[in-house]
Amino acid sequence: MLSFLITGNYTDLYEITMSETYFLEKRYNDAACFDYLFRKLQYKGGYVVFAGLNDVLNILEDFHFTGDDIYFLQQLKFHSSFLDYLKKFRFRGTIYACSEGEVIFPNSPVLRVEGNIIETQIIETLLLNILNFQSLIATKATRIKYVANNGSLSDFGLRRAQGLGGIFATRATIVGGFTSTSNVYAAQLYGLEAVGTMAHSFVESYENELEAFRAFAKHRPHDCIFLADTYNTLKSGVPNAITVAKEMESEGHRAKGIRLDSGDLAYLSKAARKMMDEAGLHYMKIAASNQLDEFVIKSLMEQEAPIDFFGVGTSLVTGKPDAALDGVYKLSMSSNEPRLKLSESLEKITLPGVKQILRAFDENEMFLGADAIILSGEGERTEKMIHPFDAEKSLELKNYKQQPLLQKVMSNGKRSMPQPSLNEIAAYAQKRLSLLPAEYKRFENPHLYKVGISEKLMELRDTLRNQYKKVNE
Amino acid sequence: MLSFLITGNYTDLYEITMSETYFLEKRYNDAACFDYLFRKLQYKGGYVVFAGLNDVLNILEDFHFTGDDIYFLQQLKFHSSFLDYLKKFRFRGTIYACSEGEVIFPNSPVLRVEGNIIETQIIETLLLNILNFQSLIATKATRIKYVANNGSLSDFGLRRAQGLGGIFATRATIVGGFTSTSNVYAAQLYGLEAVGTMAHSFVESYENELEAFRAFAKHRPHDCIFLADTYNTLKSGVPNAITVAKEMESEGHRAKGIRLDSGDLAYLSKAARKMMDEAGLHYMKIAASNQLDEFVIKSLMEQEAPIDFFGVGTSLVTGKPDAALDGVYKLSMSSNEPRLKLSESLEKITLPGVKQILRAFDENEMFLGADAIILSGEGERTEKMIHPFDAEKSLELKNYKQQPLLQKVMSNGKRSMPQPSLNEIAAYAQKRLSLLPAEYKRFENPHLYKVGISEKLMELRDTLRNQYKKVNE
Repeated sequence: MLSFLITGNYTDLYEITMSETYFLEKRYNDAACFDYLFRKLQYKGGYVVFAGLNDVLNILEDFHFTGDDIYFLQQLKFHSSFLDYLKKFRFRGTIYACSEGEVIFPNSPVLRVEGNIIETQIIETLLLNILNFQSLIATKATRIKYVANNGSLSDFGLRRAQGLGGIFATRATIVGGFTSTSNVYAAQLYGLEAVGTMAHSFVESYENELEAFRAFAKHRPHDCIFLADTYNTLKSGVPNAITVAKEMESEGHRAKGIRLDSGDLAYLSKAARKMMDEAGLHYMKIAASNQLDEFVIKSLMEQEAPIDFFGVGTSLVTGKPDAALDGVYKLSMSSNEPRLKLSESLEKITLPGVKQILRAFDENEMFLGADAIILSGEGERTEKMIHPFDAEKSLELKNYKQQPLLQKVMSNGKRSMPQPSLNEIAAYAQKRLSLLPAEYKRFENPHLYKVGISEKLMELRDTLRNQYKKVNE
Repeated sequence: MLSFLITGNYTDLYEITMSETYFLEKRYNDAACFDYLFRKLQYKGGYVVFAGLNDVLNILEDFHFTGDDIYFLQQLKFHSSFLDYLKKFRFRGTIYACSEGEVIFPNSPVLRVEGNIIETQIIETLLLNILNFQSLIATKATRIKYVANNGSLSDFGLRRAQGLGGIFATRATIVGGFTSTSNVYAAQLYGLEAVGTMAHSFVESYENELEAFRAFAKHRPHDCIFLADTYNTLKSGVPNAITVAKEMESEGHRAKGIRLDSGDLAYLSKAARKMMDEAGLHYMKIAASNQLDEFVIKSLMEQEAPIDFFGVGTSLVTGKPDAALDGVYKLSMSSNEPRLKLSESLEKITLPGVKQILRAFDENEMFLGADAIILSGEGERTEKMIHPFDAEKSLELKNYKQQPLLQKVMSNGKRSMPQPSLNEIAAYAQKRLSLLPAEYKRFENPHLYKVGISEKLMELRDTLRNQYKKVNE
């Protein structure tokens, strides 16, 4: 068996290299503050769902370097006094974040880590690895849920997942609105409903399809979905499923349904529905799989395909075609002074200081389409926000209700709020998405949700920028 | 800490569901045979590099269900006699496969599992999960190596990897020709070189860049690469790096180089090279990172950018833009009878029987561009091969040297060949790629490598197909 323990060495080497210098320079008590944010919306969509936070917090509560970790670092010739420090290292920082499941937008600092410069730096890779990926997949899942009407959604992705990435992927699909998974490992780990019936190989391993269905029904009368497309869906698979379902009825059982895994799912599902209905098997459901994504499912629903259950694999668990959310982790304070990183493009200049995000609501209690980033000292309201890359553009916010999004979720290395269940996180995501107007959720050219900055934050950024420029010219 | 142990439950539920029926039907001694193959080339490329095999074999040698696994399955109401069977379950099958690192092509059964129907079925998801992903990433890595000339290649992807997928991803990049990684965890697990220097946050955390570089150089004089683009690459970063490198010289040390992480890498690397050379720092190297992939690196090389070292992240470890190799696992024998799956499209009809792959070589000992799939009983040569989906097309092979690709790698659940080191696998991949003519390796419309079938295999497939068709009409 391969065993993977997520320890201190689950990181990029430079986090440790930098930490060593901080340590040897005796900067271990220097205060620092980092922001997590992403820059680009994936899937050409209008939003991202923030996911992975509670996995990150769970890991940080017990974050440490094992003996094996230290031994490996020793071989890399780190200084022995620093390794002694790492041996006892624990994360004791404080974290402010949006709730997991929040709907978030580019350039907004949705999570902030405060602590000493070593503990805030050394967790960077871990945090990016988990938040970037789970947010990518949770977002994909919400897009699929958005078009699936009341169809039940199950993750079928493990076989095409990016190796062990399949584990977090399944969790993220649940955050995004899926309700079950074929992944037994993830179901066990996260307490999810596991689902699954039969493969083509099962049917092929019998002399004929009818015999295969009968064998399956005999031993699983309570959970029987027949895979109908091994030979010929309408001439063989569905008629055989009906035959066996009728036989089951005479034993007092009810077959759950059939699964279609190839061919024209709209056409086949309608024909199969008709055949089952005509046989009096109205209760039998139709499950569909095979290269599904939000666009295929949307089209199936538009054609009124009578599909009750979707098993979604590759696109879902890999976030195809985008593969990664470009989240970054940027220093905003060091030794209690605000910091920024310059860049040739204004878009990549970071926002200095300790910040809060205010979300504005319209008169119907829906999201207005405007988040303002302010300095924490400014309180919990702002009169207006300014376009971060174009000071000429601004938006009045004084007439709107505003809600601060960042809450303290970890204090000195310990959770400061109870851990929500995965179901609670999923419910929160759906609730927040229900407040996001449809124009931000459509797939084609969604409306741009505005993220602006307060005047004070703009002043701070521009002052620092000019200082740095002078120094470096 | 989160801990992940890859056990029997690392699978899709239906593998267990089907196995239960096989067990309850007393079919546990029924022989079966499955093939692993993929159908579609990724990256619009001409080949795939087969990777992940040795991880699969390591897991299978110790494959079992833990007490926790059994307990979870109990809750899913599996039959207690079946759970007793699973408690003692070990994989005792036999596996024939191409060597890890082999260059492979669509529709070719590059791995075959023989055993009883339960053990051959139950490992499906695990095998697909690992082979699909590692082959995807190893292939991407070889594409990058192909254009990087002698540039040293390092995986920088963990922060954007698909969660824990980053672990196998790093291994696969090594199979594909990368020589180091920023991923400390993978370096430790697989015995790789770990690399890494500093982030922008390190530079920003000091009063100025010069001070940051000096602090770093003081404590890491043996491994000092300065990140040059925090403020202004040519006005600040490179001059400061030169200043500190000169100071290091007076202490008897040599800075390794600089890293460029933004801007026009071709322009900046040339300018930086010139500045360092003029300062007599010819030995300082230039490392580049920032959204690199095979196309960016190819362009940099064409512009003769003097870059010595590439750190490649997101595209590499996620296989962007393709995200998944579509490998499948298909039943080819059951109860010693050949089997196939029908499909409306000829391309998706599987190849029945126990098969071997023969690779043809041209007069220069290069790959001819033709692999023939034959029945194992046919020996180790074939006179000609036929297009699998168009019987009118065939290719004479009698004048060419032929090499069988499938070897027995596991016998009754135990490795039957010594485990190669990762370096040996990587060397094999490079050797095999060197035998693949350039027209199959180019990025734009690569030549199609032909995979054909023997006459006997075609006859078997077509006979079975007609039998099934008759039965199901």
